[in-house]
Amino acid sequence: MNLLLAGDFDEAERADWAAALAAALPGHRLCLQRGELPDEAIDAAIVANPPPGSLAGLPRLRLIQSLWAGVDRLLADTALPPGVPIARMVDPAMNQAMAETALWATLALHRGFFTYAAQQREGRWAPHAQRRADEVSVLVLGFGQMGRTVAGQLQQQGYRVAAWRRHAAPAGEADPAGLLVHRGADGLARALPQSQVLINLLPLTADTRGLIDGRLLAALPRGAGVVNLARGAHVVDADLLAALDSGQVGQAVLDVFHTEPLPAGHPYWRHPRVVVLPHAAAMTDARSAAAVVARNIDALAAGRPLAHRVARDAGY
Amino acid sequence: MNLLLAGDFDEAERADWAAALAAALPGHRLCLQRGELPDEAIDAAIVANPPPGSLAGLPRLRLIQSLWAGVDRLLADTALPPGVPIARMVDPAMNQAMAETALWATLALHRGFFTYAAQQREGRWAPHAQRRADEVSVLVLGFGQMGRTVAGQLQQQGYRVAAWRRHAAPAGEADPAGLLVHRGADGLARALPQSQVLINLLPLTADTRGLIDGRLLAALPRGAGVVNLARGAHVVDADLLAALDSGQVGQAVLDVFHTEPLPAGHPYWRHPRVVVLPHAAAMTDARSAAAVVARNIDALAAGRPLAHRVARDAGY
Repeated sequence: MNLLLAGDFDEAERADWAAALAAALPGHRLCLQRGELPDEAIDAAIVANPPPGSLAGLPRLRLIQSLWAGVDRLLADTALPPGVPIARMVDPAMNQAMAETALWATLALHRGFFTYAAQQREGRWAPHAQRRADEVSVLVLGFGQMGRTVAGQLQQQGYRVAAWRRHAAPAGEADPAGLLVHRGADGLARALPQSQVLINLLPLTADTRGLIDGRLLAALPRGAGVVNLARGAHVVDADLLAALDSGQVGQAVLDVFHTEPLPAGHPYWRHPRVVVLPHAAAMTDARSAAAVVARNIDALAAGRPLAHRVARDAGY
Repeated sequence: MNLLLAGDFDEAERADWAAALAAALPGHRLCLQRGELPDEAIDAAIVANPPPGSLAGLPRLRLIQSLWAGVDRLLADTALPPGVPIARMVDPAMNQAMAETALWATLALHRGFFTYAAQQREGRWAPHAQRRADEVSVLVLGFGQMGRTVAGQLQQQGYRVAAWRRHAAPAGEADPAGLLVHRGADGLARALPQSQVLINLLPLTADTRGLIDGRLLAALPRGAGVVNLARGAHVVDADLLAALDSGQVGQAVLDVFHTEPLPAGHPYWRHPRVVVLPHAAAMTDARSAAAVVARNIDALAAGRPLAHRVARDAGY
């Protein structure tokens, strides 16, 4: 098949991806830019937030395979060819990286390591009482591949874990053993007051934008930790800052922001109870992701069903 | 039996321990200070770094049960009654707390979270390349109850873990599956160059004092992380500071110090690549530890063998 790679990579990233994809896709032709082959020859596009309009006018296109897990920016392209199947990246190495970040943040919140960092800045020596992991309750928002991996590893580490999903489970799908899965607005209202740590892994859609607002934060127990590993637009920044300043939220760990890089002078940068990460919680690993792409390209070539299809109307 | 509680607790800690021990030891008499019963009536002492001389002149004493895992300060008491069995604390909740701290530190070193904290202080947005856990090698110094728990949980999290113990294994004792255990000085020399993260959990003895010196640090790969969760006197501070300043050591996480609290003005407090914790990596949990004490007191009363015996000459 003839494949087009398109994304907002820098040159080093483009070279890494080109090498990993070429190795995983022997027998296919990978074009690194539009025009290497005629537009009507391109069968599939492999994309990482390509500039809007990049995929318009490719008449034979039968798959848009994202290299990133989040497709909200891709779907915002009004020139995206209608009707062409879109697949998200579901990279086991990326899921694992996300679980590592969530576990690190939860351990730090549970054991007071952010507090100790603040005390070190003040030269203050003050050990605090120690709780067991099973005395700490964590709520994971979102229950896709990443939410499941994160919830499972936190549970394995001894935390009291629950998850929340917006919709009812598909018929016949059972929840993992021992994990409480709350559903819908009522489920969220029940779960929040018992959640000392909130970890956001939701997809960004019209329904989840701004979900983490003053009302949601007020429903958490006082001093809760908020960990946003999904999208900046899930959070109403002014509400989170107010909750931090009032003590309602004790600590925030933020990997994602409305504008990235986080602009100089943004109050998050210098807030004593905000940890700013540079959108580094989980990166797609080119080595394992190329194999995931290859499986879908092979499925397309053989006429088998595609994996990890995006529902355009749902937005993820 | 008649039991004497002795330690350098503050009043709140003493009350917590007294309540937990009284609940775990029904049918025994717990004295909270010397003189409540005649000295010749005391069968066992339950101690947490008691002031030197606290246990002298107790003629019937048949067990000194420590509430702390480390007994180096206890053994330094020259008035400690000779010949009386000493038992260390082996508290599952404390082992678990130590594993949590080691895992948090390893995740932070592996995923660059200490670097991101430094970048945040500078207002700098710069994601770094991401490695998989199986690309990070960790060496755990010490292979007692804590070392095993820590090594096992790091391995479960996907790290490439090895352990080091000073002595050969007792006859018939197998190493845990899949874990490389190095032994002796030669084993340490072989292990260090492959260890990107070094976690110290050794007991403090004449042989291990000052082990982490310039020579040991120079044998690590450049930029390694050093995590000291054992005793401050394992480390030659001037050597560690020099290694940090030269870049040979990339980051240190220190929970323990030659003098505690760490004195104001000590260079560790303000070093940009040192994390100072206030001896909080793992505290004995009064709830689970009281049950451990009770099992040994019951064994003493019944004439059964005592658990977790300290070898006075070995120092742990």
